[in-house]
Amino acid sequence: MANVREIQNPAFSAVLTRSLRNLGIQQVIKFDRVLLNDGNCYETHTGMFTAPVAGRYLFIYNFGLHGSTETWLQLVKNGARQNQAGVEGKVSDQNLQGGNAAIIYLNQGDDVWIETAILSDVTVEEYSTTFSGALLY
Amino acid sequence: MANVREIQNPAFSAVLTRSLRNLGIQQVIKFDRVLLNDGNCYETHTGMFTAPVAGRYLFIYNFGLHGSTETWLQLVKNGARQNQAGVEGKVSDQNLQGGNAAIIYLNQGDDVWIETAILSDVTVEEYSTTFSGALLY
Amino acid sequence: MANVREIQNPAFSAVLTRSLRNLGIQQVIKFDRVLLNDGNCYETHTGMFTAPVAGRYLFIYNFGLHGSTETWLQLVKNGARQNQAGVEGKVSDQNLQGGNAAIIYLNQGDDVWIETAILSDVTVEEYSTTFSGALLY
Repeated sequence: MANVREIQNPAFSAVLTRSLRNLGIQQVIKFDRVLLNDGNCYETHTGMFTAPVAGRYLFIYNFGLHGSTETWLQLVKNGARQNQAGVEGKVSDQNLQGGNAAIIYLNQGDDVWIETAILSDVTVEEYSTTFSGALLY
Repeated sequence: MANVREIQNPAFSAVLTRSLRNLGIQQVIKFDRVLLNDGNCYETHTGMFTAPVAGRYLFIYNFGLHGSTETWLQLVKNGARQNQAGVEGKVSDQNLQGGNAAIIYLNQGDDVWIETAILSDVTVEEYSTTFSGALLY
Repeated sequence: MANVREIQNPAFSAVLTRSLRNLGIQQVIKFDRVLLNDGNCYETHTGMFTAPVAGRYLFIYNFGLHGSTETWLQLVKNGARQNQAGVEGKVSDQNLQGGNAAIIYLNQGDDVWIETAILSDVTVEEYSTTFSGALLY
């Protein structure tokens, strides 16, 4: 019966515990530590959230940048960008942060992930880079 | 019966698909593309979300800035600021991001929107500028 | 009966109405104005949210920075960091913003708060610095 509840209320929250550097274009961010993963719908090895049931889901992502680089990430559903977020450090060793959120309808089996957008050499910082999602209804 | 469910669970998520420039003070951001609009409570032509039922609602907004400009946006309920967010590019062509979130009680018919705050000549960037909301309970 | 509903659906949203300067390390941010505080689970005098019931909770925090300073905040559950957010103004009088979000499981009585992280002399700005949370299920 516990599993029934988990599948009815899928939610996850994941964090990067190490910084990633020199990422290529459209590379999925694989958040390696889950704070919560009800129903095991988020897969740390692929970076994918797969909807166990149809419904409206909230997704929030934030990321940190360090240095004079530029990082753009995007929220993707089945290959289609939902929105993006970008920050750019113009001064050496600057710390900045970006992120975004969306509420989207998913069918059962739809995949949602965070990937790098238009640039290569992207960096994201440990513990300030996160991805969370939950079924709202 | 579908409408009953939609009204009981209003939620929307909207994105700017084109950048806006030279906005004046207290100008409502009209997010033109809806990812979700259950109950049609968000109006793209006015930028207003109108609560179909009383309750506690979550709102999240994020925006992108490009260039050596300053952008302040605020979350407004019936004309009263709930919170604000501001970023300022001090270097030419810098990309930055800001945003905020709140959970507030709304009566039926209350309006919530995002508007420019204290400055004119505000710019916000396409696909990184979003506004989402949902009834929590 | 109203209280029963409030306890079953705890949610809060709080804002700083004045800027804080020269904060020390691991100093709790005491958001002084509540927009919502169902069940009175958020305590403005301590800055602590205490879970009235076990469950999965969403937390979102955002903050503003002004000037050539560096601010790191972290989301803490019972003394354990869940994630962090940091921004750094490298140019005089620059406005920047950071923040993060998480969905975490809380037992009844668990405390969650926002505190300064690794640096002292931290500043956060009025009305752009917020902390919100709600029981999801």
